Formats: sequence, structure tokens, C-alpha cells
Amino acid sequence: MVQQNGAQSLVKTAMDAVKAHIRDEGLHVGDNLPSEGRFAEQLGVSRAVMREAFGALAALKLIDVANGRRARVGALDGSVIAESLEQAISTAQIRTSDVWEVRRTIEMRTAALAAENRTPHQARDIQALAESMARDDQPHVQTTEDDIRFHLAIAEASGNELYHQIVTSFVPLMRVAVPRAWKTRRTPEQRRDILACHRALARAIVEGEPDEARRQMGAHFDESIGMQLRD
Amino acid sequence: MVQQNGAQSLVKTAMDAVKAHIRDEGLHVGDNLPSEGRFAEQLGVSRAVMREAFGALAALKLIDVANGRRARVGALDGSVIAESLEQAISTAQIRTSDVWEVRRTIEMRTAALAAENRTPHQARDIQALAESMARDDQPHVQTTEDDIRFHLAIAEASGNELYHQIVTSFVPLMRVAVPRAWKTRRTPEQRRDILACHRALARAIVEGEPDEARRQMGAHFDESIGMQLRD
Repeated sequence: MVQQNGAQSLVKTAMDAVKAHIRDEGLHVGDNLPSEGRFAEQLGVSRAVMREAFGALAALKLIDVANGRRARVGALDGSVIAESLEQAISTAQIRTSDVWEVRRTIEMRTAALAAENRTPHQARDIQALAESMARDDQPHVQTTEDDIRFHLAIAEASGNELYHQIVTSFVPLMRVAVPRAWKTRRTPEQRRDILACHRALARAIVEGEPDEARRQMGAHFDESIGMQLRD
Repeated sequence: MVQQNGAQSLVKTAMDAVKAHIRDEGLHVGDNLPSEGRFAEQLGVSRAVMREAFGALAALKLIDVANGRRARVGALDGSVIAESLEQAISTAQIRTSDVWEVRRTIEMRTAALAAENRTPHQARDIQALAESMARDDQPHVQTTEDDIRFHLAIAEASGNELYHQIVTSFVPLMRVAVPRAWKTRRTPEQRRDILACHRALARAIVEGEPDEARRQMGAHFDESIGMQLRD
């Protein structure tokens, strides 16, 4: 069993001490942390408690212990939210449509902010991804990946890393939903409509038109994703 | 050190097996899980590996091992996102203003959805919280708690539990920011303005006016929180 009661609160104290160290020393992503042994000694707790604290912090991606390296400060990572989303859906706490509603709200805003804040380099990437999806000679798996990268590139171009990581947390669900959405577009005409929608969205972002970008993202959700939810 | 390399991938396999069990058995929040020992036996991994997997799942709140009980399926819990937010701010990966921007976007939408979906009971609670804040005889700490509960009640009344948990993840930051925002309102007139804003928002939700609720929430953010960020 995981350490209980008194031991559990010791683990929490140990976790708080590591978080306080990161904050008080003004550490940044990738900076080295003192070893488990050093923390255990300073806090007067056992190695077992400190090891459990490091394990919990690593699970939360607050620290990074990959590849046997010394523990480092972790980067904000949407995969932590993704784990919560996947389980909340599989245990019927939320519906896929609840996540899509949140996505629509977030991404209408990232589209508008991207139109205001995108760098020239980001504008080129977003446009290239919209064009790449429009090529007919691609296998579907590549179209799915381009579609996901398109949404992530827009979120990143918003200039707000929190939006980018929230949209990242939707990726596992998008990997399931995006191919399904493309499959409901059976005729070349239907596929052209979706691609035209992606292109219009990219154009609004490239040309710096936040209201139009927001409107196009909303239309994209209502058409391509709303139709799937109704299916 | 936390288990590394080969051992680390065994822990991940063990975590995935627990998640698959929850999904495949159709378990719900609070349902009991098999013991660590049972999983270890079935998967052919050591108790140490299984214990670490349970610890990581507990840190992510995917399972609940509180009070020495048998592990149960955990509820979607905004505190997991809150941990990421706090560290991302303290390590300068995001700014407080980035979180407030996301909050504004989310809460303008929860206000509109609450106006559409709130039950009569939720409508009464939201109105009561707005009125409670308007009482002059309260200590400031109570006003802060009422203010936070007001925003959470609106998010819950949206009918989308994911919004509710995202707003929950902002609570630790609100506990710092809300008293600060109230302090910048030094005159009785300024305080009356904020309270009038909360009341107008509550009224729009109670009366089922989504556009007005959305507008009032936006105005609330721009005035009370925007001012603080400029201070």
C-alpha cells in the first residue's frame, strides 16, 4: 500500500519542501535539484518518504527524473491534464461533448489572440499546415497529425503558454476524434469545405484579423466537430 | 532515486494496467480497486513497482488512497491543474496575467452557460452569495471566501463539470489575488461599484440572460482584475 496517515502527511510535507525550494531559490525549468538524500537529511525524514515524494512530484511533472539523471525542475505539461480528462470520460464524470465545449471556447480565443500576436514565422507555419492538409495525396494518418499540429500551432501563437498546454491536453482525445470527423466527410466536396474552413482560419490569423479568426474557429467547431457529436 | 529506465517503464506499464482496469470494468468514482498485491501478481511485477505506480496514480488523483482505505477510483480534481499552475508561475513559465486571461475567457462562458442551465436552487445560491458580499459588517476574509464561492457556483451551474474543475484550479491563485483586489477599492463608493457588478451578474444568471451574463462577467474582469494587474 501507498504510505498512509502519518506517513502520507510526511510525504506531503516533503513534497511541499521541494516545491518551496524551487520557488524560494528562483529555479527555472531544467535546473538541477538537490538529491533525495540531501532533502531527506535536511527535512529529517526517511529516504523512503523522500523517494515517495519525488515519485509523486515526477507523476505531476513538477520534476523531471527521466533517463536516470539528477532530478530537474519540470516544464508545464498538458499531459497531466490529459490524464485527468481521459479518466473523467472513461468513468462517466464528464462527456466528450463537455470537453469539446471547453475546446471550442478556448480555441475561439486562441485564434483571436494568434491573429494579434503571431510572429511572421508562426504565421508561415500555420498557413503551411492548412495547405498541407489540402493535399489529396496524403494518407489519412498524416492529415490527422497535420490537423492536430494546426490547432497546437494556433494555441502557441496566442503567446500564452497556458492556452498552449491546455490545447495540448486535448491531443489524446483529438487523435481519436479527428480521424472520425474526417471519415464522416465522404465526398470530395465535403472535404473541400473543411479544408476551405481551415484555410480561411489560417488566412485570418496571417492577416491579423482577430474577429474573423474567432468567427472562423467557431464555424469550424460547429461544422466539423458539432456534426460528429450529432452522428 | 525514483525508479529509473527499465524500472521506470515497468511503473508506467503498471499505471496503464490500473487505468485500463478502471476503463474496461466500467468503474465509477469511489468504486474499490483490487489491491496492490493482486495487481502485482496479475502483471508479474514486484510489489515495489506496483507501490510506485499506485503512488503516482494517487498524486494525479486518478485513485484515492486517503485514510488507509482500500484504493478507490478518484474524482476529477482541479487541484492537480492548480499544482501545475502554481509551479509554472513560480518558475516564470507563465505570468499571473496569462492565468487571468484564461480565467476571463472560461468564466465569460460559464456565466453564459449558467444563465441557460442553472437550477432554481443554484440560482438562489448565486444570488445569496452576491448579497452576502454586499454586507458591510463582514470581515474581509469572509468576503474573499464568498467571492471565490460565487465564481465556483457559477462554474458549477454551467452544467459542465470540466469548467467547474478548471475554475477550481484557479482557487489558490484567487486566495492571493481577491483580497488584494478588494484592498485597491479603498472608498465605500468603489466597493459599492464592485458589489453592483456582482449583483448585476447574479441577476442576469437568475433571469436567464446569457448574453448579459457574459457581458457582466467580462466587465467584472476588466474592472476589478484588470485594474489590479495594472497596479
